[in-house]
Amino acid sequence: MKFVTLMTDFGLRDGYVGVMHGVIHRIAPSVVITDLTHLIPAQDIREGSLAWSRAYDFFPEGTVHVAVVDPGVGTNRRPLAAKIGKYFFVCPDNGIVTPMLETAETTGSPVEIVHLDQPGYWLSQVSSVFHGRDIFSPVAAHLVNGVDLRALGSLIDDVIRLPGKEPQKHADGWHAEIISIDHFGNLTTNLKSHHLADLPNVSVIIAGHKIPGLVVTFGDRPPGELVALIDSDNRLAISVVNGNAARELKASIGMPVEVVKRP
Amino acid sequence: MKFVTLMTDFGLRDGYVGVMHGVIHRIAPSVVITDLTHLIPAQDIREGSLAWSRAYDFFPEGTVHVAVVDPGVGTNRRPLAAKIGKYFFVCPDNGIVTPMLETAETTGSPVEIVHLDQPGYWLSQVSSVFHGRDIFSPVAAHLVNGVDLRALGSLIDDVIRLPGKEPQKHADGWHAEIISIDHFGNLTTNLKSHHLADLPNVSVIIAGHKIPGLVVTFGDRPPGELVALIDSDNRLAISVVNGNAARELKASIGMPVEVVKRP
Amino acid sequence: MKFVTLMTDFGLRDGYVGVMHGVIHRIAPSVVITDLTHLIPAQDIREGSLAWSRAYDFFPEGTVHVAVVDPGVGTNRRPLAAKIGKYFFVCPDNGIVTPMLETAETTGSPVEIVHLDQPGYWLSQVSSVFHGRDIFSPVAAHLVNGVDLRALGSLIDDVIRLPGKEPQKHADGWHAEIISIDHFGNLTTNLKSHHLADLPNVSVIIAGHKIPGLVVTFGDRPPGELVALIDSDNRLAISVVNGNAARELKASIGMPVEVVKRP
Repeated sequence: MKFVTLMTDFGLRDGYVGVMHGVIHRIAPSVVITDLTHLIPAQDIREGSLAWSRAYDFFPEGTVHVAVVDPGVGTNRRPLAAKIGKYFFVCPDNGIVTPMLETAETTGSPVEIVHLDQPGYWLSQVSSVFHGRDIFSPVAAHLVNGVDLRALGSLIDDVIRLPGKEPQKHADGWHAEIISIDHFGNLTTNLKSHHLADLPNVSVIIAGHKIPGLVVTFGDRPPGELVALIDSDNRLAISVVNGNAARELKASIGMPVEVVKRP
Repeated sequence: MKFVTLMTDFGLRDGYVGVMHGVIHRIAPSVVITDLTHLIPAQDIREGSLAWSRAYDFFPEGTVHVAVVDPGVGTNRRPLAAKIGKYFFVCPDNGIVTPMLETAETTGSPVEIVHLDQPGYWLSQVSSVFHGRDIFSPVAAHLVNGVDLRALGSLIDDVIRLPGKEPQKHADGWHAEIISIDHFGNLTTNLKSHHLADLPNVSVIIAGHKIPGLVVTFGDRPPGELVALIDSDNRLAISVVNGNAARELKASIGMPVEVVKRP
Repeated sequence: MKFVTLMTDFGLRDGYVGVMHGVIHRIAPSVVITDLTHLIPAQDIREGSLAWSRAYDFFPEGTVHVAVVDPGVGTNRRPLAAKIGKYFFVCPDNGIVTPMLETAETTGSPVEIVHLDQPGYWLSQVSSVFHGRDIFSPVAAHLVNGVDLRALGSLIDDVIRLPGKEPQKHADGWHAEIISIDHFGNLTTNLKSHHLADLPNVSVIIAGHKIPGLVVTFGDRPPGELVALIDSDNRLAISVVNGNAARELKASIGMPVEVVKRP
C-alpha cells in the first residue's frame, strides 16, 4: 500500500478537499488518502507547520504528505516537493516545511528539495487560484507512482523558513509563549521537554495564575484544576483537568508563559 | 478487506485523528478506516455510547470499532478491548460500551472483554494524555492483523456501565426524556418503539406543545409542522418537517417528554 | 479500484455518514469511498447541485456519486440513479442533478435515468427518514458491484429540474448575482467565462463598489484589495486578496452583481 495525507485550510464545506481526492485517485488509483486536517485557520502557515510536525512521522515510511496553506497562490511563490528522511512533502514555498527541515538537520537525515517546474506532471489546465487541485495533488500522485523527485522539478537549496519562535532563557528559567490551542482548549507552548532538562522543579505562570510544579498526567489532580504538563508532542502545555484552559484563562496565541525554578 | 472505525471527541482541527490513521496503517497497512464521528461533545460518554450503538452493526462483520471519549485518560481507568457478537470494540472502561453489552445480553450473543495490560501491543512510548494514539489505535490494528483478543489483555467481567435512562411507565403512558439532538435539530427520546406496543394511539407532550398521534413519515404533514415519529433508530423522535425542532422548542438534553394514550 | 463519493447535508456530528460507509462496505467491500462534503446547508438543493457540478468529473471514470440533500424524504418524491457520460449519480428526484444533465445536453453525452423501484437492492428494512442509509447507499454499492442500471429501476425521462439562474444580458453587459460563498469568503457568481467572450474589458459593481477590470490571479493586487477574477470553476468571482470578501461586503446569496463594459 502507498499513502498520501492532505492538510489544508480549505474547510470541509465546499468539496474542494474531495476534488483533491478525485485528482489523486485518477492518477494513483489504489493509494490510501488520509485527511490530516482541513481546518487550519485561513492562511495560518505557522499553525499548519505545527500540525504537520506533530503528525508526519506516525505514518508509514514513504508516505507523501501534502500541505496547502497558501496565501501566495497565484503569486510567484514556488511550489515545492521534498524528500526529508523517510517521507515526502509537497507544499508551497512559504515556510510550512520548516520544522521537518530543522528535525532533519538535528538528526542528520538526508534532505532533497525541488522547485516544481515541470507542468507535464500537473493537470493540463492550471487555474491561478486552486493549485491544491491542479499542481500539488497530481504531483503527490506521481510521487506515489514512483516518479523520481528530480523529474518533477529542479533542485534548490534556498527554501523559505519560518522565523524561529524559540523560548528565551533567563537566570531563573524561561520566557515562553502559547503557540497553539487545541479543540479541548489545551494550551501548547514553544517550550519543549529538553529545555527543562536542568530544571527539575518549576512553577508555571500564565495570566496571573501560578501553577506549582508539573503533573505527569491529568489523573494527578481533580477535575477543574489548572495544571501544567509535558504533552504528547513533548511540549509544555497548560490544561484544565476535564475542562477548557483556553476559555478559563481567555488565552490566545502569543500569550506569555513564564517558567521559573522553584527553590 | 478488514475494517476499523474511529469515534472520538477530538474534533477535526488539530490532526489528532489523522495521526491515529497513521498509527493504524503502519501496523495494518491495508485496513480500511472509516471516521464515524469526531464531534462527540468533549467527554460526553453518553452521547458517544448512543452514536456508537446506532452505527456499529451496519458495518461488515469483524469490524473493529474504536471509541476514544476518555475523561479518565491519565488516571487508572482501564483500557479495554471486547468481542461482542460479530464485532470488536476498543475503548476506555467508562461505560461507553454499555448499549452493545445490553444488546448482547438481550440477544444472547457471546461477550468477551479484556483489560488491555500488554504494552507489547502499544506504541513503544506511551504519553499520559493521548492513549487514542499510543494504546487504542495500535491495539485495533493488531486485532485487524488477527492477534487473539486474549493475547492483548486479561479477561475481566466487571466493566463499568452507564446508569440506565429508561423511560418510566405510568397508568396513562410514559415519562420519557430527550437524550440526543442531531444536526437537523431532531429530538431523540429514550422511548423505543417496543415501549409503545400496547399503546397504538398516543399524544406526545413537549415544552407545552401537545402533538396528537405519531406520523409515519415527514410527508404526512406540511413543512413547518411539529411531528412525532419513530425514527431510523426505532426511537420516538420529535421533529419539525423541513425545520429545526431543537431551535423552535429551545430543547436541550434531559427535557421531559410525556407520552399519553388517546381515548 | 472502484470509487464512490458521498455528499449530504447531514453534518459530521451524528455518525450518519459513517453508517453510510458501513452499509456500502458490507455490499462492496473493496470500494474506495470519498466524502465530498457533508456540510451542504440543510435542504439546500441548489448549493448541493453546485458543489456536485464542481467536483464530479475530477474523479476516475465510472465513479458512483451519491448526493443526499433530501427535503422530500418520506414523501412520494422518487429516488433516482443515472448514468450521465462516464459517471453514475444516485440521488433524490429534486433537481440536484440538473447541472450534470445540462452539461450532458451541451456536450451530447448519453443520459440514462431510472426511478429506483426495486426494493430487492435496498436494505431489508427501510425507514421513512433515512433513505441515505437504506436506499441510496446500497444502490450505490450494487452499481459498484456491476449491477446494471436498468435492473435497479424503471427508465424515466421526466426528472425534476432546478429553475435556471442564468445571468441577464443587457446593452452594456450583464446582470448577474452571487450564487455561492465559500469557506474563504470568496463570492461565486452565475456568470461563466463564456459570457464574457465579447467583453474583453469590464468593470464589476457589487454592494456599491466598482472593481475596474478582472485580475488573472490574486498576486496581481496587494493583500486586502477587492478583486474580480475567473475562478477555478470558470466563474466570475469576487474576492479580497488574502481576506474575506463575504465579510467585508456583508454579502449573501442572491446579492446582485453588475458587469459593465469599459470604454
